[in-house]
Amino acid sequence: MTTLRTPGPTVGVVGGGQLGRMLAEAAAPLGVEVIVLDPTPDCPAAPVAREQIVAEFDDEAAIRDLATRADVLTFEIELADQQVLDRVSEETGTPVHPDPATLETIHDKLVQKRELEAAGVPVPPFRTVEDADDVRAAIDDYGAPVMLKARTGGYDGRGNVPVESKADAEAALESVAGPAMVESFVDFEREVSVIAVKGDDEIATFPIGENVHEDEILRETIVPARSNEAVTERAHAVARDVLEVMDGRGVYGIEFFEAPDGEVLLNEIAPRPHNSGHWTIEGAQTSQFEQHVRAVLGWPLGSTALRSPTVMTNLLGDVEEERPAQLSDLDEILETPGANLHWYGKRAARPLRKMGHVTVTGRDDEGVDELLERAVSLRESVTFE
Amino acid sequence: MTTLRTPGPTVGVVGGGQLGRMLAEAAAPLGVEVIVLDPTPDCPAAPVAREQIVAEFDDEAAIRDLATRADVLTFEIELADQQVLDRVSEETGTPVHPDPATLETIHDKLVQKRELEAAGVPVPPFRTVEDADDVRAAIDDYGAPVMLKARTGGYDGRGNVPVESKADAEAALESVAGPAMVESFVDFEREVSVIAVKGDDEIATFPIGENVHEDEILRETIVPARSNEAVTERAHAVARDVLEVMDGRGVYGIEFFEAPDGEVLLNEIAPRPHNSGHWTIEGAQTSQFEQHVRAVLGWPLGSTALRSPTVMTNLLGDVEEERPAQLSDLDEILETPGANLHWYGKRAARPLRKMGHVTVTGRDDEGVDELLERAVSLRESVTFE
Repeated sequence: MTTLRTPGPTVGVVGGGQLGRMLAEAAAPLGVEVIVLDPTPDCPAAPVAREQIVAEFDDEAAIRDLATRADVLTFEIELADQQVLDRVSEETGTPVHPDPATLETIHDKLVQKRELEAAGVPVPPFRTVEDADDVRAAIDDYGAPVMLKARTGGYDGRGNVPVESKADAEAALESVAGPAMVESFVDFEREVSVIAVKGDDEIATFPIGENVHEDEILRETIVPARSNEAVTERAHAVARDVLEVMDGRGVYGIEFFEAPDGEVLLNEIAPRPHNSGHWTIEGAQTSQFEQHVRAVLGWPLGSTALRSPTVMTNLLGDVEEERPAQLSDLDEILETPGANLHWYGKRAARPLRKMGHVTVTGRDDEGVDELLERAVSLRESVTFE
Repeated sequence: MTTLRTPGPTVGVVGGGQLGRMLAEAAAPLGVEVIVLDPTPDCPAAPVAREQIVAEFDDEAAIRDLATRADVLTFEIELADQQVLDRVSEETGTPVHPDPATLETIHDKLVQKRELEAAGVPVPPFRTVEDADDVRAAIDDYGAPVMLKARTGGYDGRGNVPVESKADAEAALESVAGPAMVESFVDFEREVSVIAVKGDDEIATFPIGENVHEDEILRETIVPARSNEAVTERAHAVARDVLEVMDGRGVYGIEFFEAPDGEVLLNEIAPRPHNSGHWTIEGAQTSQFEQHVRAVLGWPLGSTALRSPTVMTNLLGDVEEERPAQLSDLDEILETPGANLHWYGKRAARPLRKMGHVTVTGRDDEGVDELLERAVSLRESVTFE
């Protein structure tokens, strides 16, 4: 049975960006303390966390220090070094969740897709790429365009290059530095995602969200997704299959393409709370951040039930070049019933940088189209310019 | 129009108990930073706030230090010294909200009742007490029992002594140290409260809550209260009248007796977020803590609409004597859909000390009786023993 003392258990988080910040925000009411490790002094999570260790993500001595002060380690960035985490965990006896092996599996998109395919998870047709011939062969087999992807290091669409024709193969490959893979381009109805949580001996999934991307960056998440029931059920079932492959406890963001025939094809996995799950803070009985805290501590998971239809919209830097962060004209957001502002505390606004988000919850009788319109209008009412 | 930068505005809070902690929790997503001043090292608010200044509540130099680092000062305790706050505010130019004059008005219950009565707010019959004769005269006029109250310093029922008969007058007066007043004992249907917010040029009131007290300590708040519509409307109207009397922005907790004839009689006022408003964190569109942050900064207030029927239950120290805080058997709370745990981070449990609370939200079709039963059962499932 779970017991709480003061000071409560401490979670050490590698990474102190907005995810670390929202983890700390969710941990506070539970009496759970958070220490973050991040190279940027006074990182976004710093004002909310108990403490920040200022160090690089792979600084083994600093991570050892974090581990000795924490009851469990977790990470909010895929950049965390799996081998360092493994070694520190073994030396200090402090567990790491999710398991660093999961990080390694996910880190290389080719390895990830192979493991998932082997586990029966539907994925778009894919193959490894050694040279431009492989890209051209993929176009022959899958038809143009195809999606060329860096196997490692990409997120927010970085490292993903659509290849429209065989003639573009060489140039595309050059633009992707390092090992690559190629995937069939899915002509999807919509993009959806499932936030799934692996607890000590349980798995929970949140209602599926529909994601609107532009330039491969998430703009809005709409919950519930406007998919039919069969698609919804299928997405939940596949998300559970994905979690069977992953080792260790925690929250995973699982992105799918919903194909015209209703099948869901796995797109990306993040072994951490995910931007497409930010809606859960107001929209679900338990937020993805609280679930992650519970999961890594081995506490029982909370209810993932929807509280009300919800739309989340990202506040991206609408600036031409870097400048000090300054969001103007907040009044409409602050005054709109059901709108909640989340500010990440970043010092500088950069073009399309995630600076915060706004969640709009509705009454049960409000359709998500209405909420989406309200959210977009609120997003457009503010500016970093 | 409101603008947000990083670092955001800073609120300096005199007092770092659970109210300061929940203020800091509510401020974080808004990008607002909180510095607390409290004499207890590592006070409940410390792990969540940006910083704690360790100093007595009336330490003028420390409060000046707080004021120079903050954009606005506020307080979470009535013990704050009105004259010190006034002087520091004048010297530093940092405003204090609510206005320290309000603190003084509320501080003395006799002054408070007189001012409110003069403003047309219904209050139980009351009079000042110089000696036991005055108490006996009150019994003659109002009938027994009467409520003898210390004019200053009482909270959670401390300093309130029911006097059952004239023979008890001397002893009761002795047990109340210092100046006293006496009130007619209201034979109420129920106790209700309104959390009201005074903004820059607006007043907002939350749905009224029904409060269950035992030994004059709040046990549960039930929202919406089981009062009829006329009572509800009357309570809101009187709450607005009360706020007209108060100077300065912020949240006020206003407690009423609901008389059998449907009139509401003012019982107590707190010039700060109030225990009977903790339900707003999950139950309302905007929490009382976020409203207080908005109000003291002069930001627009948020919606006070109910999100769903809600019951809050306090986790009080069920111990015989002081011992280290340790809450056992949390699993049922963690596993119950719609139940949310709030832990205050106090080091020691003491008999009936407020250690945390649990909020239970329901679906629209669930009656508050059902939620109340669930909340009480959850409260009884845990122990500090």
